[in-house]
Amino acid sequence: MRAEILSVGTELLLGQIVDTNAAFLAQQLSTLGVDVYWISQVGDNRGRLVETFRRAWSRSDLIVVTGGLGPTEDDLTREAIAEVLGEEMVEVPELVDQVRAFFARRGREMPPRNAKQGTLIPSAQALPNPIGTAPGWWVERDGRIIVAMPGVPVEMRKMWEEQVLPRLRQVQGTQIILSRTLKVLGLGESAAEEMVRSLLASTNPTLATYAKQDGVHLRITAKADSPEEARALIASFERRVLDMVGDYVYGADDDTPAGVVGRLLTEQGLTVATAESCSGGWLANALTDVPGSSKYFVGGFVTYTAETKRLLGVPQHVLDTYGTVHPETSAALARAARERTGADIGVGITGVAGPDAVEGQVVGTVHVVVDARGTRHTESSVYSTTRTEVKRRAALDALFLLWRALRDVGR
Amino acid sequence: MRAEILSVGTELLLGQIVDTNAAFLAQQLSTLGVDVYWISQVGDNRGRLVETFRRAWSRSDLIVVTGGLGPTEDDLTREAIAEVLGEEMVEVPELVDQVRAFFARRGREMPPRNAKQGTLIPSAQALPNPIGTAPGWWVERDGRIIVAMPGVPVEMRKMWEEQVLPRLRQVQGTQIILSRTLKVLGLGESAAEEMVRSLLASTNPTLATYAKQDGVHLRITAKADSPEEARALIASFERRVLDMVGDYVYGADDDTPAGVVGRLLTEQGLTVATAESCSGGWLANALTDVPGSSKYFVGGFVTYTAETKRLLGVPQHVLDTYGTVHPETSAALARAARERTGADIGVGITGVAGPDAVEGQVVGTVHVVVDARGTRHTESSVYSTTRTEVKRRAALDALFLLWRALRDVGR
Repeated sequence: MRAEILSVGTELLLGQIVDTNAAFLAQQLSTLGVDVYWISQVGDNRGRLVETFRRAWSRSDLIVVTGGLGPTEDDLTREAIAEVLGEEMVEVPELVDQVRAFFARRGREMPPRNAKQGTLIPSAQALPNPIGTAPGWWVERDGRIIVAMPGVPVEMRKMWEEQVLPRLRQVQGTQIILSRTLKVLGLGESAAEEMVRSLLASTNPTLATYAKQDGVHLRITAKADSPEEARALIASFERRVLDMVGDYVYGADDDTPAGVVGRLLTEQGLTVATAESCSGGWLANALTDVPGSSKYFVGGFVTYTAETKRLLGVPQHVLDTYGTVHPETSAALARAARERTGADIGVGITGVAGPDAVEGQVVGTVHVVVDARGTRHTESSVYSTTRTEVKRRAALDALFLLWRALRDVGR
Repeated sequence: MRAEILSVGTELLLGQIVDTNAAFLAQQLSTLGVDVYWISQVGDNRGRLVETFRRAWSRSDLIVVTGGLGPTEDDLTREAIAEVLGEEMVEVPELVDQVRAFFARRGREMPPRNAKQGTLIPSAQALPNPIGTAPGWWVERDGRIIVAMPGVPVEMRKMWEEQVLPRLRQVQGTQIILSRTLKVLGLGESAAEEMVRSLLASTNPTLATYAKQDGVHLRITAKADSPEEARALIASFERRVLDMVGDYVYGADDDTPAGVVGRLLTEQGLTVATAESCSGGWLANALTDVPGSSKYFVGGFVTYTAETKRLLGVPQHVLDTYGTVHPETSAALARAARERTGADIGVGITGVAGPDAVEGQVVGTVHVVVDARGTRHTESSVYSTTRTEVKRRAALDALFLLWRALRDVGR
């Protein structure tokens, strides 16, 4: 089944709101096994709406539209559908009564213009909207379907789940699509793709790579007649992926670097403390995003000057010999964080976030050290990117090193 | 000028990512006075890409496309543009050298397939991408323009601001729209809207409110024949807005809470140190996002346990009397941060980020204290929201208090 998503509203074309409805619907349709080929945003303009609906009606089996179901003259989704199908909009007394009842529950009278929300065309059934005034439309004709829902996300989602999804499941039969995402740290997208190259041509399951905020994603997608069959396809394919790149796969699906590190720390009964210079608290902030992190994260230091580094316990001779940006300085920070707080593991980060070079070292330089009870793991990199990105990358390097160190202890 | 936005990538049609690029570009184009009539998302499929480009080329004066400029076989934006214009892609040695240099800066060799990122067609100029491998394209032919930029938001925005915007301003004639956004902290959106209610009906300039990550935005938009005229309209309207809500307006346009606080600290020659519990480093991370913050931010402590609070210098009797979440404990943290580092101002934050209540205090409780050379400013709130949002709100409260304290000193 070929589907198309339309989002209606001039505010989308002015960039006043981000179209999260389309992403939600695309994701829902993809897990139903429906192929979404087109998504578009259209303004509250009758000519352009009709043109867009006409094209969609000519090429798609299913059109899911949100927005334009309000009571004003600018709300033209119903009118456009009626025009494209050559059908007439008729007020349905029971539907108008439902809209009127919605106002009555709020102690208000229905403004006359809202009567238009109680209209249908012959090919349409109404989709009830218990939390708003606009009922949806389920239109079926010539083997094609149009679903029209309100643009307000909370109303749309409720209508989708309670009204649309059950109807679509009936239409759609059994074929389903399942996905699983493996997540990689310590490799760029090109390098990861290179390592799994031979699997990229596979058609079922398919494999695709994406560069994301929390590392590189390897997404495995399988089509099958049952969830069990799809899961089995994914499981055997996943083993082949892991044979190639498993050493860098820190988790799957909803896992985050800080979440996985937290799980390993909890399992191993270890605690951690951080001492950050260039990353400025990013790492502590990420670690404490995880619920329950107070069990293993004892504390963090943002030592933004040579003076606060000394104060934490970095020896003067280290600063004199190596300066404030150096693997040895990061190591001294990691050690000081560990010893000051009594944590099992200390993390130290120095670097140059920019805009200016420091002690002759270029912007983007990052030195990360993980000191796990005296065993030192070091990683140095140079990132050519923005200040906030350098901070983020430095902290991600630290999470990568932490994960590696904890995983290898556990092995 | 009629514009159209295309976002390329199968991940958009699978709902794996939300198309924030389109919203950003729509908003930018609208402030340029360019009418955006169509936005669509297209997958990495050559046939559908060409079809979509062909339609756009036939109906729009300006096509802004993001995504599909990577090095892989799935990245087909260049190929589709070339096909629609009937031009041939040619490798440009200097461009390929730039891509190669990007890899060299990372100590890596350019994979052969990346050479395709150094191609152009005769009607295209390259748009430099200093923070990624994919240069953009600026295509001009038959009085129409195509702008192709990378899909990675940070690369796209940099290219937009430095390369595309200046070129578009030249192309774009005289009727212009200018906007100015006043930014509010310490008030919710409803309260802010209530205070400026009488101005919301104005038609030129218009006034609109938005709840955003860095506070409530009050956006003033004026249309005029010249930038001077538009600026004059905005200036006189702004005075009326400030009369109503000025006490809460911390800045405008690109100002951020941390940036404004940094500017005030710099002007007044003061330094700050932070001691965070429930916000877990969010505040330090925000303060250090500002270039030049090393001049006034001396250091931060994330004291996530009673033990690390003691270690920093919170007296035992404070912890015994008030517990770990209390205005007095925040005050002791603020004072300890200040005294430990010698900073002029200390900030202390305690609270309950969740998921569990602490010492009988509900999730979402936040106590913030700013200790400016012994003068104490306190703010306590309860937020019913998620863990990461509680962290963010706590830090934002601290920035609000800091800003108020610094502003009032300066008055």
